[in-house]
Amino acid sequence: MAQLQRIGIVGGTGYAGAELLRLLVSHPQAKVVAVTSRGDAGTPVADAYPQLRGVVDLDFVAPDADNLADCDVVFFATPHAAAMHDVPALLEAGKRVIDLSADFRLRDASLWAQWYGTDHVCPELIERAVYGLPELNRDRIAGADLVACPGCYPTAVILGFKPLIDAGLVDKDSLIADAKTGVSGAGKSLKPGFLFAEMHDSFKAYGVAGHRHLPEIRQILGDLAKDDVGLTFVPHLVPMIRGIHATLYGRLNTQADLQTLFETSYAGEPFVDVLPAGATPETRHVRGGNMCRIAVHRPGGGDTAVVLSVIDNLVKGAAGQAVQCFNLMIDAPENSALAAPGALP
Amino acid sequence: MAQLQRIGIVGGTGYAGAELLRLLVSHPQAKVVAVTSRGDAGTPVADAYPQLRGVVDLDFVAPDADNLADCDVVFFATPHAAAMHDVPALLEAGKRVIDLSADFRLRDASLWAQWYGTDHVCPELIERAVYGLPELNRDRIAGADLVACPGCYPTAVILGFKPLIDAGLVDKDSLIADAKTGVSGAGKSLKPGFLFAEMHDSFKAYGVAGHRHLPEIRQILGDLAKDDVGLTFVPHLVPMIRGIHATLYGRLNTQADLQTLFETSYAGEPFVDVLPAGATPETRHVRGGNMCRIAVHRPGGGDTAVVLSVIDNLVKGAAGQAVQCFNLMIDAPENSALAAPGALP
Amino acid sequence: MAQLQRIGIVGGTGYAGAELLRLLVSHPQAKVVAVTSRGDAGTPVADAYPQLRGVVDLDFVAPDADNLADCDVVFFATPHAAAMHDVPALLEAGKRVIDLSADFRLRDASLWAQWYGTDHVCPELIERAVYGLPELNRDRIAGADLVACPGCYPTAVILGFKPLIDAGLVDKDSLIADAKTGVSGAGKSLKPGFLFAEMHDSFKAYGVAGHRHLPEIRQILGDLAKDDVGLTFVPHLVPMIRGIHATLYGRLNTQADLQTLFETSYAGEPFVDVLPAGATPETRHVRGGNMCRIAVHRPGGGDTAVVLSVIDNLVKGAAGQAVQCFNLMIDAPENSALAAPGALP
Amino acid sequence: MAQLQRIGIVGGTGYAGAELLRLLVSHPQAKVVAVTSRGDAGTPVADAYPQLRGVVDLDFVAPDADNLADCDVVFFATPHAAAMHDVPALLEAGKRVIDLSADFRLRDASLWAQWYGTDHVCPELIERAVYGLPELNRDRIAGADLVACPGCYPTAVILGFKPLIDAGLVDKDSLIADAKTGVSGAGKSLKPGFLFAEMHDSFKAYGVAGHRHLPEIRQILGDLAKDDVGLTFVPHLVPMIRGIHATLYGRLNTQADLQTLFETSYAGEPFVDVLPAGATPETRHVRGGNMCRIAVHRPGGGDTAVVLSVIDNLVKGAAGQAVQCFNLMIDAPENSALAAPGALP
Repeated sequence: MAQLQRIGIVGGTGYAGAELLRLLVSHPQAKVVAVTSRGDAGTPVADAYPQLRGVVDLDFVAPDADNLADCDVVFFATPHAAAMHDVPALLEAGKRVIDLSADFRLRDASLWAQWYGTDHVCPELIERAVYGLPELNRDRIAGADLVACPGCYPTAVILGFKPLIDAGLVDKDSLIADAKTGVSGAGKSLKPGFLFAEMHDSFKAYGVAGHRHLPEIRQILGDLAKDDVGLTFVPHLVPMIRGIHATLYGRLNTQADLQTLFETSYAGEPFVDVLPAGATPETRHVRGGNMCRIAVHRPGGGDTAVVLSVIDNLVKGAAGQAVQCFNLMIDAPENSALAAPGALP
Repeated sequence: MAQLQRIGIVGGTGYAGAELLRLLVSHPQAKVVAVTSRGDAGTPVADAYPQLRGVVDLDFVAPDADNLADCDVVFFATPHAAAMHDVPALLEAGKRVIDLSADFRLRDASLWAQWYGTDHVCPELIERAVYGLPELNRDRIAGADLVACPGCYPTAVILGFKPLIDAGLVDKDSLIADAKTGVSGAGKSLKPGFLFAEMHDSFKAYGVAGHRHLPEIRQILGDLAKDDVGLTFVPHLVPMIRGIHATLYGRLNTQADLQTLFETSYAGEPFVDVLPAGATPETRHVRGGNMCRIAVHRPGGGDTAVVLSVIDNLVKGAAGQAVQCFNLMIDAPENSALAAPGALP
Repeated sequence: MAQLQRIGIVGGTGYAGAELLRLLVSHPQAKVVAVTSRGDAGTPVADAYPQLRGVVDLDFVAPDADNLADCDVVFFATPHAAAMHDVPALLEAGKRVIDLSADFRLRDASLWAQWYGTDHVCPELIERAVYGLPELNRDRIAGADLVACPGCYPTAVILGFKPLIDAGLVDKDSLIADAKTGVSGAGKSLKPGFLFAEMHDSFKAYGVAGHRHLPEIRQILGDLAKDDVGLTFVPHLVPMIRGIHATLYGRLNTQADLQTLFETSYAGEPFVDVLPAGATPETRHVRGGNMCRIAVHRPGGGDTAVVLSVIDNLVKGAAGQAVQCFNLMIDAPENSALAAPGALP
Repeated sequence: MAQLQRIGIVGGTGYAGAELLRLLVSHPQAKVVAVTSRGDAGTPVADAYPQLRGVVDLDFVAPDADNLADCDVVFFATPHAAAMHDVPALLEAGKRVIDLSADFRLRDASLWAQWYGTDHVCPELIERAVYGLPELNRDRIAGADLVACPGCYPTAVILGFKPLIDAGLVDKDSLIADAKTGVSGAGKSLKPGFLFAEMHDSFKAYGVAGHRHLPEIRQILGDLAKDDVGLTFVPHLVPMIRGIHATLYGRLNTQADLQTLFETSYAGEPFVDVLPAGATPETRHVRGGNMCRIAVHRPGGGDTAVVLSVIDNLVKGAAGQAVQCFNLMIDAPENSALAAPGALP
């Protein structure tokens, strides 16, 4: 059985940080000892997240090395371009790092600079980072000391396309991912477009010209295809809090039993659920849980495969996936702290 | 100036019927004289729609011929397979009919029977019906005595694809329409999936295997392309009341200035608004109004055209379009009763 | 018939400003000639409010006297403590002013200073202002050159209590107003609590210790009672965009036919609708319209009167009421530009 | 440590039944062995609740005695007037029963018949039932074989008023409970008013003339006051799924430190959280959890106490409270299966 791990969470005031806390308080091998916040240092964590009153008794601390000195594992739930400044010293000090932000996801530092608008400060560590999608990299994650957790869109899109690309069934040059997200993926950003009065009872696309998750998805799908892929990725904002629904389109270059393909591909995966033929997943079916539920269709028996893939963006798309990686890293059961089903309705 | 028209609304208890009332009470050339409801005959219309208290003083009447004898124009806002029973006699009696339901949309009666599950009772009238999309059939609508108003999805999808297909720019065999709707398109159906607790804060696809609007869209796009088209159509349900957002994908077979193409195509159209390059329409931008707003993108300068097309499903997708057709038929200004902008937020 | 009035709107980027535009574009005696915005001067109004594309062709102008020189009537849709700086000069220049903000609502300038946190700069004008609630002050509004439109909560609460207080039926020392509002009453404030992710699917009270509308309500109810009143006012935030629902409790000091009392009190009022006995108004019944709908109950035949009063906070609670006052001031029909029913659902 | 209990859930297709399943699968001393459904017998439970796919492997069984023969404890999550038919035999067979429905809440069978519209079939058992509010009846619940769990409104209202009534601080004849609920309290009822299109983005009161929870609340508050109480209870429907927010008003008959009173009253209660002075609870702060959070205010230092009390209607208002009672009955830690915080946002 895994030893008790002392945990630090950097960037604890955001939604992913809160979700990490929610999950880790139920984890038998984890003890959260430090939660950092630059702005709220000194105030109780439960003031920021009243649902944790009586459950989490920590105060926020400043994000200083001293405050994390005592940790075995540090989770970063920070905006991009924060973790890369602190990770080198933490690794140096022998800690393992699970980064939920974008800093170590792209292998090409210049591509990172282009999409994130600033130079990477420790490009030499990028190679050391393991992309934290257990369904792709289970073994490498187990041995990693730096895990780069995928973005929320990439998780839903990659898991949806993977069986088709692995099997070489679709035209890899004309993939389409029409993705829809709840607003919590944007965190607590104070932007007018995220005000209730500005997005309730409405629907829109955004980022059509280019979204930061596009190069990440292309990188991983390219790995699977062993070649560059052509992907059109259009994200949309749904008036809901949690959930991603990716509707994926691929042109089939041959006939195949897609249902069996998907079921076989994900047999034994604890957090990928292939729905029965004909089903359509709903984001509420994964709300609060770490599951990715996937259905595959071929409308009218034609040559277009349609894959529907749903996750909770804050769980399988962020904190839950990070905990899943953590479980692999400490050799705990992969579903520790992740077994409870979400609440519905 | 157009003469005052005496109006009957058949099927007045549904959302499209209520929306017709809302619009027509402001129409200078229309006077609603009969609103039918089988179940609510004898009770005030305003009891069913409290927003009309003090505005509409009529009682519902039974849907009998006698109650419509006095009308010049009859709107059908009924479920499918109702209008076809009553329309022949009304036309015989010299009335003009605007059907918001599906009964006269498909030119092939056997296709209709296949998708709607019952035989058509007056297939000989189908040919006489004009498809009520003014942007396609303005002149024919003006002279019609039977107008078959398009479905809500078809309106958004057809207007979005039309310039590309007219110009022959896209591969007509691999069109994709990823469409999202608010729930009012389903009317007041008492189905569990439309309960607030079952769809709030969630998102899903439905009808992936086949939706009744698919053959309608294919028929019209086929007309434009002068050939059969291949279309994958995946509808989704958004937790909002009104609005359709169609995200359309077409593979470009040549380079072209799409922005100029769209602006030129719809120059002068009173109810199609081509947004500036780079914009993304939101369904709330058309809520309560008859406008279709469209943006065209080519992400990454690649070979996929992405068109975003939004309408209010109850207005441009139903009652507003019907009034627009009515205006053409009576030679009133095309925007009579349709000029008021929607309320936002 | 009233002469055409040239209209200026100061503070045009907020929700009340947009709503004024939406209503006034349909007003036969109004022509909006200037819409000001400090931040957006020089940009098209329709960029801020895409639902007005093709309807409003003005650009925002800076809020300078020059830009309003041409106006007959100026509406202020500004945050508090703005109008009071500009109104004196405008009145001096012979313009009539309709202020939707709080600056001229409270008769006691020191009370104003206490609740709004800054001294009033033109207390001498407060007395000249007429409180713009037509159901109380119809005649005085008609002759006014400075109208202070009520707040949204006060409109719903005052209209609900008025018949009971006028008739002396309730204990004026223990009135309770439990009020619920949609979020648009807060305008476009960029505060975390108004983010979609922070208020969707949740409900809360706020301002229990004291809300700025409390002294305003007490002032007017005190006028009606000809004495100070004791009022407990608890506002709540509903996860919806528009609408106020006030649930009012008064202890009856005598038996009376409350239904008849309310119907009689508001007979002939164009924008107060007393519902039939037993009914319960919904905020959607007034969404987008200028109506206040009221129901009065006496649960269990006991000694507590319960009044339910709903308005659209942006219409009868702001822009619509301002237009109603405008109509009185220019001797236009009171419902000009206010007759169209709201859209439902 | 408590022995493993074999559990039956009668009425498993409703929301309370699903919530019981969600909680009990994490309970170390509970094993659900039977979930009944008249309509869905023979189909997998996870078909009705896809969030439980992979977690619950049972099929629904018919609600026959045989199917429950093997249970130690039976939960009823049925509509009213169902449990009373089956409970006598189950008790006879030595099982313990926890009834989440209304059948055993009212001590007066004739009052029950009046409010529920049918005669009680086993009035002799009513006395044997213990009202399952642990904060009132902890010891009696522990020894009970029939527990009548409170309704959702009563839980929020009673816990909010209890300290004030116990201390004799408020006028017990003029209590007011202005309560707001999410729609899941109505279960999956297929009524038009619960359709998304009919309640989204709107707010209303209902049941003003009398709600079935009124006599239940009056009974318990009367117990506390040792006298009849006068209560005006107005429920409202909030466009959200879960949550109850009760705003309670009581006229103080003396000065007192209300904050200290509440903190003292609930010291040591595991599922009542008295918020710091000045705070306002939000329903999302208890979403998915079993906590009741309460704040007490005295606006303006006047003589009206305002108590804000929130619960999740499906947890502390139904399934969670039932599990809390179960824990007491089997001498397990009171928070077994109830310790996990809810997810926020």
